[in-house]
Amino acid sequence: MAATIIDSRIFQGIFSTDAMRAVWSDENRTQKYLDIEAALARVQARLGLIPQEACDEIVRHCRLDEIDMARLRQQTERIGYPILGVVTQVNQLCRDKLGEYVHWGATTQDITDTATVLQIREGLALVEADLQRLAAGLAALARTHRLTPMVGRSNLQQAIPVTFGYKMAGLLSAVQRHQERLAQLKPRVLVGEFAGAAGTLASLQTGAMDTQAGLCAELGLDQPVIAWHTIRDNIAEVGAFLGLVGGTLGKLSTDVKLMMQSEVGEVFEPYHHGRGSSSTMPQKRNPIGSCYIHAAISVVRQHAAALMDAMVADHERSTGPWEIEWIVLPEAFCLMAGALKQAIAIVEGLEVDPAAMRRNLDLTGGLVMSEAVMMGLGPHIGREFAHDMVYDLCRESLQRGVPLIELLAGHEQIARHLSRAQLEALLDPANYLGQSGVMVDRVLARQPG
Amino acid sequence: MAATIIDSRIFQGIFSTDAMRAVWSDENRTQKYLDIEAALARVQARLGLIPQEACDEIVRHCRLDEIDMARLRQQTERIGYPILGVVTQVNQLCRDKLGEYVHWGATTQDITDTATVLQIREGLALVEADLQRLAAGLAALARTHRLTPMVGRSNLQQAIPVTFGYKMAGLLSAVQRHQERLAQLKPRVLVGEFAGAAGTLASLQTGAMDTQAGLCAELGLDQPVIAWHTIRDNIAEVGAFLGLVGGTLGKLSTDVKLMMQSEVGEVFEPYHHGRGSSSTMPQKRNPIGSCYIHAAISVVRQHAAALMDAMVADHERSTGPWEIEWIVLPEAFCLMAGALKQAIAIVEGLEVDPAAMRRNLDLTGGLVMSEAVMMGLGPHIGREFAHDMVYDLCRESLQRGVPLIELLAGHEQIARHLSRAQLEALLDPANYLGQSGVMVDRVLARQPG
Amino acid sequence: MAATIIDSRIFQGIFSTDAMRAVWSDENRTQKYLDIEAALARVQARLGLIPQEACDEIVRHCRLDEIDMARLRQQTERIGYPILGVVTQVNQLCRDKLGEYVHWGATTQDITDTATVLQIREGLALVEADLQRLAAGLAALARTHRLTPMVGRSNLQQAIPVTFGYKMAGLLSAVQRHQERLAQLKPRVLVGEFAGAAGTLASLQTGAMDTQAGLCAELGLDQPVIAWHTIRDNIAEVGAFLGLVGGTLGKLSTDVKLMMQSEVGEVFEPYHHGRGSSSTMPQKRNPIGSCYIHAAISVVRQHAAALMDAMVADHERSTGPWEIEWIVLPEAFCLMAGALKQAIAIVEGLEVDPAAMRRNLDLTGGLVMSEAVMMGLGPHIGREFAHDMVYDLCRESLQRGVPLIELLAGHEQIARHLSRAQLEALLDPANYLGQSGVMVDRVLARQPG
Amino acid sequence: MAATIIDSRIFQGIFSTDAMRAVWSDENRTQKYLDIEAALARVQARLGLIPQEACDEIVRHCRLDEIDMARLRQQTERIGYPILGVVTQVNQLCRDKLGEYVHWGATTQDITDTATVLQIREGLALVEADLQRLAAGLAALARTHRLTPMVGRSNLQQAIPVTFGYKMAGLLSAVQRHQERLAQLKPRVLVGEFAGAAGTLASLQTGAMDTQAGLCAELGLDQPVIAWHTIRDNIAEVGAFLGLVGGTLGKLSTDVKLMMQSEVGEVFEPYHHGRGSSSTMPQKRNPIGSCYIHAAISVVRQHAAALMDAMVADHERSTGPWEIEWIVLPEAFCLMAGALKQAIAIVEGLEVDPAAMRRNLDLTGGLVMSEAVMMGLGPHIGREFAHDMVYDLCRESLQRGVPLIELLAGHEQIARHLSRAQLEALLDPANYLGQSGVMVDRVLARQPG
Repeated sequence: MAATIIDSRIFQGIFSTDAMRAVWSDENRTQKYLDIEAALARVQARLGLIPQEACDEIVRHCRLDEIDMARLRQQTERIGYPILGVVTQVNQLCRDKLGEYVHWGATTQDITDTATVLQIREGLALVEADLQRLAAGLAALARTHRLTPMVGRSNLQQAIPVTFGYKMAGLLSAVQRHQERLAQLKPRVLVGEFAGAAGTLASLQTGAMDTQAGLCAELGLDQPVIAWHTIRDNIAEVGAFLGLVGGTLGKLSTDVKLMMQSEVGEVFEPYHHGRGSSSTMPQKRNPIGSCYIHAAISVVRQHAAALMDAMVADHERSTGPWEIEWIVLPEAFCLMAGALKQAIAIVEGLEVDPAAMRRNLDLTGGLVMSEAVMMGLGPHIGREFAHDMVYDLCRESLQRGVPLIELLAGHEQIARHLSRAQLEALLDPANYLGQSGVMVDRVLARQPG
Repeated sequence: MAATIIDSRIFQGIFSTDAMRAVWSDENRTQKYLDIEAALARVQARLGLIPQEACDEIVRHCRLDEIDMARLRQQTERIGYPILGVVTQVNQLCRDKLGEYVHWGATTQDITDTATVLQIREGLALVEADLQRLAAGLAALARTHRLTPMVGRSNLQQAIPVTFGYKMAGLLSAVQRHQERLAQLKPRVLVGEFAGAAGTLASLQTGAMDTQAGLCAELGLDQPVIAWHTIRDNIAEVGAFLGLVGGTLGKLSTDVKLMMQSEVGEVFEPYHHGRGSSSTMPQKRNPIGSCYIHAAISVVRQHAAALMDAMVADHERSTGPWEIEWIVLPEAFCLMAGALKQAIAIVEGLEVDPAAMRRNLDLTGGLVMSEAVMMGLGPHIGREFAHDMVYDLCRESLQRGVPLIELLAGHEQIARHLSRAQLEALLDPANYLGQSGVMVDRVLARQPG
Repeated sequence: MAATIIDSRIFQGIFSTDAMRAVWSDENRTQKYLDIEAALARVQARLGLIPQEACDEIVRHCRLDEIDMARLRQQTERIGYPILGVVTQVNQLCRDKLGEYVHWGATTQDITDTATVLQIREGLALVEADLQRLAAGLAALARTHRLTPMVGRSNLQQAIPVTFGYKMAGLLSAVQRHQERLAQLKPRVLVGEFAGAAGTLASLQTGAMDTQAGLCAELGLDQPVIAWHTIRDNIAEVGAFLGLVGGTLGKLSTDVKLMMQSEVGEVFEPYHHGRGSSSTMPQKRNPIGSCYIHAAISVVRQHAAALMDAMVADHERSTGPWEIEWIVLPEAFCLMAGALKQAIAIVEGLEVDPAAMRRNLDLTGGLVMSEAVMMGLGPHIGREFAHDMVYDLCRESLQRGVPLIELLAGHEQIARHLSRAQLEALLDPANYLGQSGVMVDRVLARQPG
Repeated sequence: MAATIIDSRIFQGIFSTDAMRAVWSDENRTQKYLDIEAALARVQARLGLIPQEACDEIVRHCRLDEIDMARLRQQTERIGYPILGVVTQVNQLCRDKLGEYVHWGATTQDITDTATVLQIREGLALVEADLQRLAAGLAALARTHRLTPMVGRSNLQQAIPVTFGYKMAGLLSAVQRHQERLAQLKPRVLVGEFAGAAGTLASLQTGAMDTQAGLCAELGLDQPVIAWHTIRDNIAEVGAFLGLVGGTLGKLSTDVKLMMQSEVGEVFEPYHHGRGSSSTMPQKRNPIGSCYIHAAISVVRQHAAALMDAMVADHERSTGPWEIEWIVLPEAFCLMAGALKQAIAIVEGLEVDPAAMRRNLDLTGGLVMSEAVMMGLGPHIGREFAHDMVYDLCRESLQRGVPLIELLAGHEQIARHLSRAQLEALLDPANYLGQSGVMVDRVLARQPG
C-alpha cells in the first residue's frame, strides 16, 4: 500500500521511472549498506586490522536475501536508524563470533552517508544519460528546423520571426550547461564518508586514514578531505542541480503547452492512442507530458530549498537536519526522473507543423514584419522617419483590418523607393531570421559526435 | 518496492502513520472514486435522471475488490488520469449496458477533486484528533508544572526565571488556535465538486444543480457556490494550515532538543529500550522524536509554498498546476501525521527533571535574578541607582566568580536597607515567576472539559 | 540610495504602493514605538504605577520629529535592536529624570512586536480595501458578462463554451473567501504583546496584567492569552494569508496573459499611452500588469514558507527566527500591495472583446460543440451510438477541414432525426452554457449591497 | 523613505553592506545601462555601423549625472521598463540627432540583462573577497586550535572528544568548495546579452555577430553561444550558489549560538560595548551576529527557489518570470553580503575559551570517554566483553553519580590489566582526538599561501 504518488502503483510510471525508483528503494539502500560493510571488511583485512577469516565470513553474509526486512523495520523503529539493525543481523549470521568484526570502527552515519553517495552516483548516472538523450533530441530538432520560420513571441505577443530550430537550440544550450555542471559537481559529491562517531576516526587507533582511503577506493569514490557528517554543501548542491535542470524542463514544457494551444497548434506532444485525448471532446489534444513536468519541477525547486535548510546542521552530528535529506533526496531524484522521461518523450516524438507556424506568422497581416520594414525603409527615407511612418501604417492596418502590404504599396512616398515585390520581400519572414541559423550552429558545434 | 521514505517499509512507521497512509493509499483513493460514482447514481436515480435499475447495478459494482488495479495502471498511463479507467471497468462489470449510466454528466476532475476532499476530510479528522490529544498532553504538563521554576532563555542566554508550565502553556495556546483555524477552514474546504468539463455543468441538460446539491448532501459535503476546477484556494489553505501546525511542532521539538542537551538535561523524550541510545556512548540520550519532527516540518513548509504555486491555474482546467497537488497533498498529510505522532509521544511521555531546572537556575550564582534584585532595591535607593549598582556587582560576580549574594550582602549601602535573608528572598527564583501561573490559567481556561 | 526593487525610486510605484510602503517605513515603525511607549505611560499613570507628571512629559516627547534617526541607527547597530535607542532618546528628552518612567516594565520585544501588529493592522486594512475593490470589479465583470459566451479551455485546449462572467465569478468566489479568512484571522493576529524579558511580566510586581490589558485596550488590540514572544503562528498566518491571496491574483494574471495572446485576443489590460507597447513592434499589447503580478506572488509564496520557518523559535526569545519576520513581513505586504494594485487596475479597466470570444468559439468549426451534439443526439439514437458517430465525424472534420455542421447535416442517420436548423441550434454555443448564469448569480448573491 | 529592512536607514548596516547595496542601487544599475550603451556605440563605430561622430556624442552623454531620475521613474511606470526612458534621455541630450544611433539594434532586455550580469560580476567579486577572508579566518582558527580538545556533540548529546580546530576545518572545507563553485560558474554567468527583440539579432542586418562579440569584449564578458532572454539557468545558478553559501554560514552560526549558551560558554562572538548585552540582565552575551545570519539565509534559500521558478519562462521574452529576478536577485546578494559580514566578524573576533571546553569535556565524569575505554580494554578482555562491562559501569556512574574512574579503578577484573594511571590516560580526552589534527592539516593544505 503506497501513500505517495511516486510509489503509487497507479501513478508510479507517470511521475517517476522504475530505474530511479529502484535506486532509492529499501532494497537498494540496504544492499548498499551491505556492500559498504563488505568493502570495509576487505580493506581492513588487507590492512591487517581484522582477521581475513572474519572478512571472508562477513563478505559471505553481506547479501540482501539474508536480511530479515520485517525485523529490520522493528530494529529501525526502536533505534531510530537502520544501520545497527543491519550490523546486528550480519553479525548474527556469521559463525564463531567472526561477525564481531563487521562495522569495525564505523559509525551509523558513515554507512548511511556513503550509501547515499552510492545511490546519488546511480541516480546521477541516470540523469546524465537522460540529459544526453534530451540533448540529442533537441539537437536533432534544432538541426532539422534550423531555418523553419515561426513567430517569436515576447510577453505572449507576436513579435518578430525566429526559427523553430533556434528555439530548440536555446534549450539545448542550457542542457549542455547542465551537463557541464554535473561533471563539475561529481568530484565534490562522489566522496565517501568514514569518520566515526564525531568525525575524527578515533574509533580506529591504527590504520584510520588508510582504512578511509582504502574503503573509498574500494567503492570507487574519492576520499574526503575531512569528515562531512554536518558539512552538507555536497548534498544540497545535488538538490540545487536537480532544481536547475527542472527549470529548463519547465521552460520546455511551458513552450510546448503554449504551442499546443487550440489557437496556436504549432507542435504536438507525440500521440499515443487515447493519450491526452478526451472521450467527449475529440478536438482536444492535451499536453499531458508537459503537465507532469510542470508539476514535478514545481515540487523539486522547493526540495532544493529544503536541502539548503538541511545544511544548517548542529555540531558533529545533526539533530533533525540530516533527516530532511532522507525525505527529500529520493523524491527529488524520482520526480526529476519522471520529468526527464516526459521531456525526452516529448522531444523525441514531437510533431512539428511548419505550415501552422507559417500561418501564425501571417496572422497579423504582416505586422510582425514591421521592424523589418522599418529597417528596410530606413536607408531610403531616414530611420526615424521610416519608423514613424511604418508605425502609423501598422496602426491603420490594425484598425482598418487592411493587410500591411496594401498600405505600404499604396503609399506614395514609399512607392518612390520600393516596388511591391521589394516590399513583399521585406515582409517575408524568411528574410528576417537574423542570426537564427548562426546561433543554432554555434550551439550544435558544442554537441559531441 | 518503495522509493520514498514515507512508503519505505523500513521507515514508514517513523515518518508517517498507518492511518494517514491508508487515507492516501491507492486503495482508499480508488474506493472514494467508487463511492462518489455510486452516490451520483443514487442521486440521479432519485431525480429520475437515470433508471433505478441502472443505479442498483452500478452501486452493486462500485466495490474496490471488483477493480483490476493492474489494468487501471495501464489505463491511467495511457489516458493520463485514472477516472476513465475506473468508469470503464465499472461499466463493463454491469449487466445489460446499464453501466452506461455511470459517471452521468460528470467529468474526470469532478470525481478526482471530490475524492480528494473526502480524503482531506479523513486526513483532517486524524489531524484534529492528534491536535486534541496534543493539547491535552500540553495542558497536563502546564497544569502539573504551573509553578515549577526553570530558567527562561533569551537568545540562548539565561535570562530570568519562568515556569515549565508557562512554557507548555505557550505551545498549548498555539495548538488551540490551530484547532480554531481547522474549524474555520472546514466549511471552505469540505465542499464537493460536480461541474462537468469546463465547470458549467452543461453536460446535464436537466437536473444539473439538483444533482450537484444531492451528490454533495449524499457525501456529507457542502455544495460549491461555483465550480472550483481552477480556483484552488481551498486546497492551498489546507497546505498552509499544515505548515502552520508544523511550525508549532518545530518550536516544541526545538525546545525539547535544547533542554535535552547534555549540558542542560532538564527534560527527556520518553525512554524505550534502545531508543535514542548509542551502543558505544552510554551517556547519550538522543532526542530522536524531535529530529523527525524537525525534518518533517521543514519539508511541509515547502509543500505549503508548492500548493500556493498550484493555485496559479490556467483557464477552466489547468495544465500542470493541478498535478502539483497530487504530489504534495498526500506527502504533507503523511509527514504531518508522523510529526504529530512524534510530538504526542514526546508530550505524553516527557520526563521532566525539576531538580535539573533548579540546578540550571543556580548556574550563574544568582545572576539570572539580577533584574529581580534591581527591582527590589529600587524603592529603597532609587531605580536608576539600583540598576547601576547591581549591574556593577553582577560584572564583578562574573569576573571574580563570587556568588552574587555575597557581594550584595557585603555591600555597605545595600546592607543598610536589606538583610541577607531579604536579599536571599529576592534571589529566590520562586519569588520572581511573575504572571507565569496566571498565564497558565488563562490558557487552561480555554481547554474544554 | 535604494538597493531593493521595492524601495527603488525607479520601480517603487510598480512593485508596491506608497501607502503600503509608508506602513513599513522606518518613520512609521518608529512612530509606532513612540505611540506604544506613550500609551504605556498613560495606562500606568492611570493605574498609579508611574507619576502622572512623568506620563505627561513622556507623552509630550513621543514624537517622531524629536528622534535623531542617525543616532538611532548607530544605537541600533551597537545594540542589535532599535528599541533601547528610542527609549534612551525619549528619556533624555524628558525633564527632571521623568524619562526614567518610560518603557516601565517593558522589554524590547514587547514594543517591537506590538508595533509590528499595529503595522500589520494598517497593512491588512489596505489589503482589505483592495480586496473589496477587486471583488467589486470582478462582480461588475461577472454581472455584465453573465452570458457572454467564450470558449472554456481545459489543458489549454478548447473544450466547451462557458461565459466570461462565469470565469470572473470563479475568481470572485475566491476573493470572497479571502475576505472571510481575513475577518477570521484578525482576532488571532491583532493582539498586543506586553510580557517582559521572558514573557512572564515579572518586571512589574504590581499591576502587571492590568497594565497589559490597559495597554492593549489603549491601542485597540486584543489582550494576549499568554506571551507570544516565541509562539508565532499569528505572524506566519498573515504570511500564509498573503500567499493565498497571491495565488488567486496569479490565477487572474495567468488567464489575462493567455487571453491577451496575439492568437487569442479576447481581453486586454487597460491601455495607457505607451504602456505595454513596443516602439518597433506596433502589433504588441503587452500584459504588463499581469507580468508584475506573476513575479510578485512567486516571491510572496516563498516568503510564506520563510515565515513558517520563523515559527521554529527557541525558548523564550528566539535566536534568529524572529529576525526572519523583520525581513520578510514588510516585503510580503509591499509586494502584495503592488500585485493588488495591478490586479485592480486590470479588472477595473479590462477591455473585453465578445466578438473575439465568439470568433475563437468558432475556430474549430463547431468541434467545441461536439459534447452538446452528442447530448442532443443521444435521446434519438442512443447515447453510446451518438457518441461514437459524432466522435468519428469530428475526426473527419478535423482531418478534412470540413465544418462539422456539413458532416452532421449530410449524415443520413442524423438527418432522419434532426433538421439542419435543429443541428445549428445544437451547435450554437449560446445554447450550451449550462449553469454559467446560475453559478454567476450564486456568487453575486454573496456580494454585499 | 525605505520600506524594506535592507534599505532601512536604521537596519541597512546590519542586514547588508554599503558596498553590496551600492552594486544594486538605482544609480549603479542606471550607470551600467549607460556604460553598455556607450560600449555599444564604440563597437559599432569601430565596425562602421554608426558614424564615429555619433559614437563620440553618445559616449559623452552616457553619464549618470545627465539623467533625470524623476523623469526616468515616470517613463518607467508608463512603459514598464526603464531602458527606453534612458535611451530617450540620452538621445535628447545629443546634438544634431546623433542620438538616433544610441541603442542601435538593441532591445530592452539586451541592456537590462547585460547590466544585471555586470552587477552580478561586482556582487560576486564582493562575495569572493568575503569568502577568501572567511576562509582565512577559519584557517587561522583551525591552525591555532588544531589540538584544542572539546567535546564533540551528536544529536546535541556529548559524544566523544574532537578539537575546535577540527570543527573550524570542516567549515573551511565547505568554504573552499564554494570558492571552487564560484570559479566554475563564472564562465557560465559572466556572459553578455545582445540579441534583439526575439534573440535573433535580426535588428542588425550587417555586423550582428561582430557587434555582439565586440560589445562583450568591450565589457569584459564572454560572448553568449545563443541568446538567453528566456534561458535563465545562469541567473538561477547564481541564486543556488548564494543559497549554498548561506547554508554553510547557517551551520557556522548554529554552532556559535549553541556554544555561546549560558550552560556551554565555549566561544563568544566578539564583544563591542553594548553589543548583544542587556541593560537589565548583565549575565547575557547574545549571539547577535549569528541571529542575523540565521535570518538572512532562511530567506535566501527561498530566493534560490524563486529564481528556479523564474526559469520557467515563456517563448522568446517571458511574461512575468523575468521580473522575479528583478525582485529577488538584489535581495539575495544584499542579504548574503550582510550574512557574510556578520560571519567574518564572528570568525575574526571569536573568543575561544579552551578551559570551558575542557570543563564541558569533564562534565559527565568521564562518560564521554567510554568509547575510548572500551577500545583500550578490548585487547585485554575481549571487545564485546569490554563493551558490556564498560557500558554497565557507565550506567552505574550515571545513576550513582560516581566518577567513572572510581568505578573502573575499583573493578577487580579491570584492575588486573590496567593501573589507575593507565585508566586515567584512557580517560584523558587529549589521547582520544583521533585524526582531528590530520584532517585539519588536509584542509589547511588546500589553502593558498
